[in-house]
Order: sequence, then C-alpha cells, then structure tokens
Amino acid sequence: MKYYYLTPGPSELYFTVPQHIQTALSHDICSISHRSAKFQEIFKEAVNNLKTLLNIPDDFYVVFTGSANEIWERIIQNCVRNYVFHLINGSFSKRFYETSLELGKKALSSEVPFGKGFEDVSSLKIPDEVEMICITHNETSSGVSMPLEDIYTLRKHYPEKLIVVDAVSSLPYPDFDYRLIDSVFFSVQKGFGLPAGLGVWIFNQRCVEKALALQKEGICIGTYHKIPELIEKASKYQTPETPNVLGIYLLGKVCSDMLSKGIQTIRKETAYKATLLYQRLSEHSFLRPAVENPSHRSSTVIVAHITDGRTSEEIINLYKPHGFILGKGYGKAKDTQIRIANFPTFSKELFEKLSDIL
Amino acid sequence: MKYYYLTPGPSELYFTVPQHIQTALSHDICSISHRSAKFQEIFKEAVNNLKTLLNIPDDFYVVFTGSANEIWERIIQNCVRNYVFHLINGSFSKRFYETSLELGKKALSSEVPFGKGFEDVSSLKIPDEVEMICITHNETSSGVSMPLEDIYTLRKHYPEKLIVVDAVSSLPYPDFDYRLIDSVFFSVQKGFGLPAGLGVWIFNQRCVEKALALQKEGICIGTYHKIPELIEKASKYQTPETPNVLGIYLLGKVCSDMLSKGIQTIRKETAYKATLLYQRLSEHSFLRPAVENPSHRSSTVIVAHITDGRTSEEIINLYKPHGFILGKGYGKAKDTQIRIANFPTFSKELFEKLSDIL
Repeated sequence: MKYYYLTPGPSELYFTVPQHIQTALSHDICSISHRSAKFQEIFKEAVNNLKTLLNIPDDFYVVFTGSANEIWERIIQNCVRNYVFHLINGSFSKRFYETSLELGKKALSSEVPFGKGFEDVSSLKIPDEVEMICITHNETSSGVSMPLEDIYTLRKHYPEKLIVVDAVSSLPYPDFDYRLIDSVFFSVQKGFGLPAGLGVWIFNQRCVEKALALQKEGICIGTYHKIPELIEKASKYQTPETPNVLGIYLLGKVCSDMLSKGIQTIRKETAYKATLLYQRLSEHSFLRPAVENPSHRSSTVIVAHITDGRTSEEIINLYKPHGFILGKGYGKAKDTQIRIANFPTFSKELFEKLSDIL
Repeated sequence: MKYYYLTPGPSELYFTVPQHIQTALSHDICSISHRSAKFQEIFKEAVNNLKTLLNIPDDFYVVFTGSANEIWERIIQNCVRNYVFHLINGSFSKRFYETSLELGKKALSSEVPFGKGFEDVSSLKIPDEVEMICITHNETSSGVSMPLEDIYTLRKHYPEKLIVVDAVSSLPYPDFDYRLIDSVFFSVQKGFGLPAGLGVWIFNQRCVEKALALQKEGICIGTYHKIPELIEKASKYQTPETPNVLGIYLLGKVCSDMLSKGIQTIRKETAYKATLLYQRLSEHSFLRPAVENPSHRSSTVIVAHITDGRTSEEIINLYKPHGFILGKGYGKAKDTQIRIANFPTFSKELFEKLSDIL
C-alpha cells in the first residue's frame, strides 16, 4: 500500500525526487569532485533556481549547511556580538533562543504560551543594545505562524537591528519581501520534499558586514562555516567542505519543477488545502484546530487538538489504513495533538480525500 | 560508457549503493521521522555494523556530523582548553591546525615538507601543557600515510594526552588498535563509497570527560553538536538535529556488505592493489610515486608525480577514454601530480586493468 507521509518533517518526498535520484545516479552526481566544473554547475543551478522561485534579490547570498539547527548556531556566532532578542512561540524558537545562551550571548526573549502567537508585536519592548531579532515564522511544534506584516512591523520599529527569520517548515509558501529581512533559512526535508541533511541559509550584506566586524574584533565566528569562508567559496559556486552534493543537486531540480508549476499556483493550492483542512477540523467530532486565533494558524503545519481523550497514536492508527501517516504532537503535546504537513508535494485531490476521511 | 571515478573523494560509489538507494526509496526511508522507532533501528544498525567492521570497542561512542570538516571544529571545541599539537604532513592536516587557531586555541605544530612523512615521531618535542595530539593518518592531498606504529609510539610517550586521528581517506583499511587512540573520524564519500554529506566521529570516554570538564568551566563547546548533546541523543539511537537519514541508512548497509565480504579480504585486496600500482609507477615512463619513502606511501590514496612536464589534465584525459577518471593533484601540486583512490569498491581486476593501461 502507498502511504503518504503527512508528517511535518521529514515528510513525503516531492513527487519528482525519486526520478531525479535515478538521473543523479546515472550521471555519477555522487562521484564527481566538489571542486569540478560539473559541481559548480549544480551549485549555480540550485542557487539560481531558488532565487528565482522565492524572488530573492540578486545581492543576497545563498549558502549550504548540514541542517537548519546548524544555521541557528552559525547565525548567532557570526552576527551577534552581545545582545540578541528571540520571539518564542513554540519549542523550536525556544531552542533557537537556548542556542544563543549556549554560545554565551546575552539572549533576551518574549514568550507566548504554546499554541498562541504574538497578538501585538509593536508592543514588544526590545532594548537598544539588541543587535539581532530572531523570529520563527512557522512553529513546527505548535502550528503557530507569524503574519508577514508582523515581521515587517518589527523591521519598521527597529531598522538598525538585523531581522532573522527561521522559515524551516514554511518555505516555499511565504512570499517574503526580502528587502525587509536580513536573513531567512530553512531545511530541505519539509516544504521542498527532499531527503534530510541540508540546510539553506539566505542572508544579505548586512550579515556579512557584521561577521567581518566581529572577526576583526577577534571574536570567534567559527571555522569552515563562518560567513566570510562560506561566501568566498560560494562566489566560486563551491562549498568549504565536501557537501551533500546529491542534496544540492535535488534542490536545484525540485526548484526547477516548482518553477514549471508556478510558485503562485503552489501558494494558491497550499492556501486552498489549508482552508479545506481547518474548515473540516472546525466542525470535527473529536479534533479541533489547536491554534485558536485564525490569523496565527500555520498554512503549512496544521495542528489539531484531540478532544475525546484518545492519544495521538490511536488517532494516527485510525487513518493509517487509508494511506495517510499523520504526525504526533510535539513535546508536551506529543500525545494530545496531531500534526499534518501541508507541503507542496501533496495535491489538492489528496487533501480533498484526507478531508473526506477525517 | 561506464566511467570509474578513481578520484580520492567524492569517489566511485560502493557498488551496492545504487541498489540500497532503491530499497531506501521503496521503504520510505527519506520520509520517516527521525524520532521514530524505524529511525532508531537504522541508527543502531549503522553504528553496530561499523563497530563490528572496524573492531571498535563497545565503550566507544559513534556519532554523526555533516562532514569531517565539522569534526575538526567539534573536537577542538570540545576537547581542548588551551593547548593542542598538530602533526602536519599535508594540506588537510594543515587546515586541521588552522581550525584550532581560528577557534582561538594555542595550536603548536610540527610540519614536514609536502610529500614527506615524519621520519621519527619519537623525536618530536611535545610540551607538557599540550592536551591533545592531532594526527592525520592519511593525507588525501599528498598521498602520505603515517604507519600505525608511529601513532602508538606517540601514545606511549604521551599517555596523558588525547590522541586524535583523522582517518578520512583511509578507513576502513587501517586496522587501528582503538585502545591506543582516543578518537578517530572519517567522512563517508571516500573508502565507504557513499554519497557525501555525512561525517562519522568515533571517540572514547576520555573525550567525553574532557568536554564535560570544559563545559563545567564555562568554556563554550558548541550547541546542538557538543559532545554531551550528541551522546545523550545517541544513547537513544537518535541525533540532535534531523540528520542525513539516507546517509546513515546507507552506511549501515555498506558496512553490512563489507562484513559479508570480510574486512580481512578487503584489507588484503587493498594492499594488493596498492602494491600493484606502486610497482607499475616505479617503472613508469612519465609517472613516479610522489612519496619517496615506501613506508610513508598511502595504500588508499596513491599519488604520482608527472615527470615529462605534461599537466595533470593532460594525463587525466589520456586515461579517460579507457573509462578511468583519475584525480588531479592537490593545492600547489594540482597540475603536476595525479591522485588515484584505491578504495574497497574497486576490484582487483579493475586495478589490474588500470595497471596494464598505465
């Protein structure tokens, strides 16, 4: 039986990926040197296709890491001298905050209860000494998403501070205005439907300047994956280390497939599928949307609270015979909630079927 | 035409890998949760098979990173308070040393000229305050390898210091006595013939104790990939981040295949193929072994100097029509040397054919 992994990451592969892996194998993509012209073409294609797909300005950098967790560490190391501010709206934004603490930074935060978003970001008091504001656009743990306008409001209030957005489980859905953000990052095993093991880090010249300034002051900003090293190699369409070549190759191919489909179509379909599912959950007999405020509900990670006392495992087992693998809740909500990924690989028809079955 | 990538990494895939990738795809290995029982089985299989294959003692830890470059950084961060000593016998050991400097450690070193090994390690004067000795067993850049006895001599002279061995391009060939080493690491795209994007880090309790001591002193040892976090997750057959699940799966499968073949057979064949090739090079009309001292010649990365003034590119183009892709030299020797990987995926018959053609 064919199972659809509607888990929020790793998730179902984008439907074209198995074929691209065959092509990669027949073209020896896993054997070529990462210093060869062939690899440079692969790097260039991935970055260019991604930039086109997401409408990332030309002067932004795109580099690769092993995971998005790694980017949490690298961005704090490279772009924060002392003070950083974290908006905590779930378990992953909390771990991002803890990363700052572990790196010895003076990390400040504002936290909302699990399952809630920030009602009024303009009321946040972020001290002058804060250099960077860290926002988790889409909380994979709780299904809370931050409206893009809230991000831009923070930029408006704090134009001098770096604005960094963790978009791990939302891209390629959000249509960010990158001119109002300094850095965005994600990992490929979610919305892009690729095998895990690759983080994608997008940042602008302000981040570079900050890293260079810290380096000049003698602050350790890392080694092979510090920003100056990453961009020096990226300027030659290379990476400092031998990277996940297959992952970079597949990213370029899937971005190309998404470009063929059209990013607007993908976004419209995502919104349609999310509306369908939230509608169904709002009238469900034993499930309800876990995020109460509709404007804070994620379109890409849909979380439902179980209202009849059954465990998430029981609910998951209920739908498995229909071919749908749903995700458990996260952390404390592991047993009491289920999470459903609404990523681009899932068709409207599949979500209509899911909605019927739910 | 089928090309054999005799490049020293990425290199030819182990011959069973394409089939294992098919199986992985049909079993949804890329879609399963990294917190699921299925992933734990994959983790356990990879670690257990590797430990059996390499005869790693039970009480050693095996954890995964994005690359071996990452392990350079992590091991210095986690296991060095102030002083570290590097034996530099080529470009990669030099970068390992530079990693220590970039991390702000007091890095001391002893360096031999490119293409040479250490003639007498017992004459090295390593100061008392040095906490860790870093050895590159096999220099992928120059084709120099350090005899295992030299490593054990260092252990004998400096029993209190941590002994760390970069075995990136030699494992699974060397039959290390892990009781005389504190940490060994490698990346999978070389001897194991896997797609790049995974580093494997093997270490003992002494490394753990050191990391815990540094952490207690308030020294930053990293975040998600610090030793205490890595081993806490590994004790549950998990990783801190969403890892390269496919890579870990393939490592387990290839180790199993190598166990079926027999590690002694693999080692004997590697030695035979190396002898064959060095023999051929020693009587060649325009190539000669780049490493003069036979006891310092690597069995897994065989480097030849071009004696008739042609460039490595010309030599590589000479053998490409026969189906053999050889590697260029490294760094300054890029144009004047060629490198030939002698990894387990290449059969004796293939090397006999290569020897004939050379």
